[in-house]
Amino acid sequence: MNNFRLNVLYILTLLIGLSVTVPVFAGNVILIIGDGMDDQQISIARNYLKGTTGRLSLDNLPVRSNVQVLTVSDHDPSQPVYVADSANSATSMASGTVTSRGRIGTTAGTDEDVVNIIELAQQRDIRTGIVTTASVTDATPAAFYAHTNSRGCQNPEMMVNAEFYPKVFVDCSADLKSNGGKGSISEQLVSSGVDLILGGGLKHFTLASEGGGDAVIALAEQAGYQLALDLEQFDRIEEGKLLGLFSSSTMPVIWRGEDDRTAEQSERTWPGFIHWALGEAIDPKPMRCEANPDSSDQPTLMQMTDKALSILDSDDSDFFLMIESASIDKQAHYRKTCGSIGELEQLNDALDSAMQYAESHPDTLILVTADHGHAAQIVPDTSLFSSSPYPIYRPGRLSRIITPKGHIMAVNYATTDFITEEHTGVSVPLMANKVGVGRLPSMITQPQIFNIIRDFLFQEE
Amino acid sequence: MNNFRLNVLYILTLLIGLSVTVPVFAGNVILIIGDGMDDQQISIARNYLKGTTGRLSLDNLPVRSNVQVLTVSDHDPSQPVYVADSANSATSMASGTVTSRGRIGTTAGTDEDVVNIIELAQQRDIRTGIVTTASVTDATPAAFYAHTNSRGCQNPEMMVNAEFYPKVFVDCSADLKSNGGKGSISEQLVSSGVDLILGGGLKHFTLASEGGGDAVIALAEQAGYQLALDLEQFDRIEEGKLLGLFSSSTMPVIWRGEDDRTAEQSERTWPGFIHWALGEAIDPKPMRCEANPDSSDQPTLMQMTDKALSILDSDDSDFFLMIESASIDKQAHYRKTCGSIGELEQLNDALDSAMQYAESHPDTLILVTADHGHAAQIVPDTSLFSSSPYPIYRPGRLSRIITPKGHIMAVNYATTDFITEEHTGVSVPLMANKVGVGRLPSMITQPQIFNIIRDFLFQEE
Repeated sequence: MNNFRLNVLYILTLLIGLSVTVPVFAGNVILIIGDGMDDQQISIARNYLKGTTGRLSLDNLPVRSNVQVLTVSDHDPSQPVYVADSANSATSMASGTVTSRGRIGTTAGTDEDVVNIIELAQQRDIRTGIVTTASVTDATPAAFYAHTNSRGCQNPEMMVNAEFYPKVFVDCSADLKSNGGKGSISEQLVSSGVDLILGGGLKHFTLASEGGGDAVIALAEQAGYQLALDLEQFDRIEEGKLLGLFSSSTMPVIWRGEDDRTAEQSERTWPGFIHWALGEAIDPKPMRCEANPDSSDQPTLMQMTDKALSILDSDDSDFFLMIESASIDKQAHYRKTCGSIGELEQLNDALDSAMQYAESHPDTLILVTADHGHAAQIVPDTSLFSSSPYPIYRPGRLSRIITPKGHIMAVNYATTDFITEEHTGVSVPLMANKVGVGRLPSMITQPQIFNIIRDFLFQEE
Repeated sequence: MNNFRLNVLYILTLLIGLSVTVPVFAGNVILIIGDGMDDQQISIARNYLKGTTGRLSLDNLPVRSNVQVLTVSDHDPSQPVYVADSANSATSMASGTVTSRGRIGTTAGTDEDVVNIIELAQQRDIRTGIVTTASVTDATPAAFYAHTNSRGCQNPEMMVNAEFYPKVFVDCSADLKSNGGKGSISEQLVSSGVDLILGGGLKHFTLASEGGGDAVIALAEQAGYQLALDLEQFDRIEEGKLLGLFSSSTMPVIWRGEDDRTAEQSERTWPGFIHWALGEAIDPKPMRCEANPDSSDQPTLMQMTDKALSILDSDDSDFFLMIESASIDKQAHYRKTCGSIGELEQLNDALDSAMQYAESHPDTLILVTADHGHAAQIVPDTSLFSSSPYPIYRPGRLSRIITPKGHIMAVNYATTDFITEEHTGVSVPLMANKVGVGRLPSMITQPQIFNIIRDFLFQEE
């Protein structure tokens, strides 16, 4: 054939080739969970950190989906429950299984263990890591490696008749090793084989293991984990199995309200107690956010993410890394707007690190999502009805946050009068980097997140 | 050249041709606005209508984006305001302009008119329609054809010193025709040239026009509008300019709470008044939703949508149609969960009609969005902290809705103790049919919705 014809055939083959040979490869998955990070929380953080017209890094992710959070009754698993907790929602994501509130990797009602993505990854020699600002034994991380009937049984002393919340007791006796179970969550962690675990929760490891044996932390060392308990150790360790525990329980958040203020109740002048239309409503004074002095001697979520990516990255294995920004939820429970904002900034910074890693490792799927909705709502600082002559009282607790530019953003918490707010049953966002294009439908159920991770991680090489 | 070479060249040309000749055509735009339809409202309606694992039609739309709702201060338009009303958010979508609360198609502070998408469409002989369950002069529809400094000036008697809400007065004197303005919103509607308007709000048209002239409705007839004031007239009219007004103000919603109940306050036994840890919290009794007897003699939003599509459809012109499901918001203000659910079902049915139209008219871009967030939150019917021995009191008002399958979904309204709830400042969803693929970034500001509509509607043929 002449050159022209050869060229034409070459180009034609190339064009057809491009259209049919979809490149097939496995890759890494980084799942970033903002605990309680619904669109209210994201809007609050965006307004504060970037302004109403600004963008967080997670806003710039090119793929957006929406997640139906599913929960069922433990008494009758055929019945829906409309609001999740972190245990059952993390079990959805980790195992693709809808379960009941409080359960870690077990089925509603029948209490059977369900296989999680980390166990599946380990069968394929895929490296695994968990990074969180909570205790590493808290519900969200635990669902990725443990199986218990209650999130409360975090250590050997929390297994039977232990006080989880004031006057609330847990019973994990069925999970005791002596009863044929897998033991407490911290014990399950040290035998989990997860390559890297970074977060808080040291207090769950310094206790004797079940039956009065070695402390759980000693078992971790026997299982091959290097321990990092402070910043110096954290900085020094650069490879190998690593368990980092940087605080006794939840890691301190980076920000707090001025003088540690939380949202507060509005007050009414005395005529307001006689009739709603009388008197005057007095909202709490505005407050700035300030650095939390307790957070200085610990790694940030971004630093932990960088460490995880550096250790998990290798030429001969892909990895699965779950990163949790836990205190968006925990601070919202206690009506601490600044704490949630700072924590969401930590998530956003960790995402920046992940995105930077993905730039040089383009086979990395990054997913960002929340596990459930939360109580906080941005409400008008000046009521929509402010021209009314009547006082406008706020139920719940209000924080009026002064943004860096000096504007006042009002955030209300009013799901309960109890010492801690409730979650809400709203669907939650799911975002992905460009590797997620075509992999995320516009709407999915929370257990389908497990399927997406599995299908990406376990593609044929 | 031999046949083989010709074939190769032909295929090559075809392949290259396919890759560079993006088909260019104009098309129709159907913008469906759920007033106050944030993800909480959608989740509430989904849980009730389809179950937690079910899907509304809007959930099945293949493109999902998220919208930053933007509002500025009228006093100083450089300052953000964190919660919108329907007037400024509809102005964003209709005109691409961020403005202050209460404004209809005018700029914050400077009160200048901004051009809206309907005016631009009319310049290009594109047909236009507005369908709403609110008064056709209410804020959302008004922003698509009118220009006033206040949403309150809906008719000639509401222009000066008129009571908008109890003891709240509006001043639209600058908009009086006698002062060089464009007149009240109903007067602006009849001179707007919009081809089809269907909704409520008859009372704004039966008054004498400014200066004591003909009734506004007579002006409408003089402007060439056929009037439809009942179902019979609605059914009969099949072409031409049409103004349909089926109720005095907002059209009655299709559903209401059992015995017209709304969300109610939880009660506490007397020890609870002494200390929060004492006594017992008694939540309102569960309720079913029932048909609203007031809604029987009016067209549904779906029927109005079908009428609009049938009249606006033509071989020689594209169209822009705005459909508003108004009472998701209005019912949420009054803590009427069933009303909001029924109204969201109406939106979903109207979307079904639009999707069916788009099947035979594939050049139709369908957008579904909300204008702002609202008060309702799905809260746990059984508190997350129910194992605590302390009573869990709910601030705000709670409805416990019995779903068709007999489950209880608890919805709380707690942004204010006032007679009507506040909006919230959350970002809102934006969905599109497949025509929207590649046209909607994963996150946009609300005024960019105007750009998307304009760019699609005014493409070169």
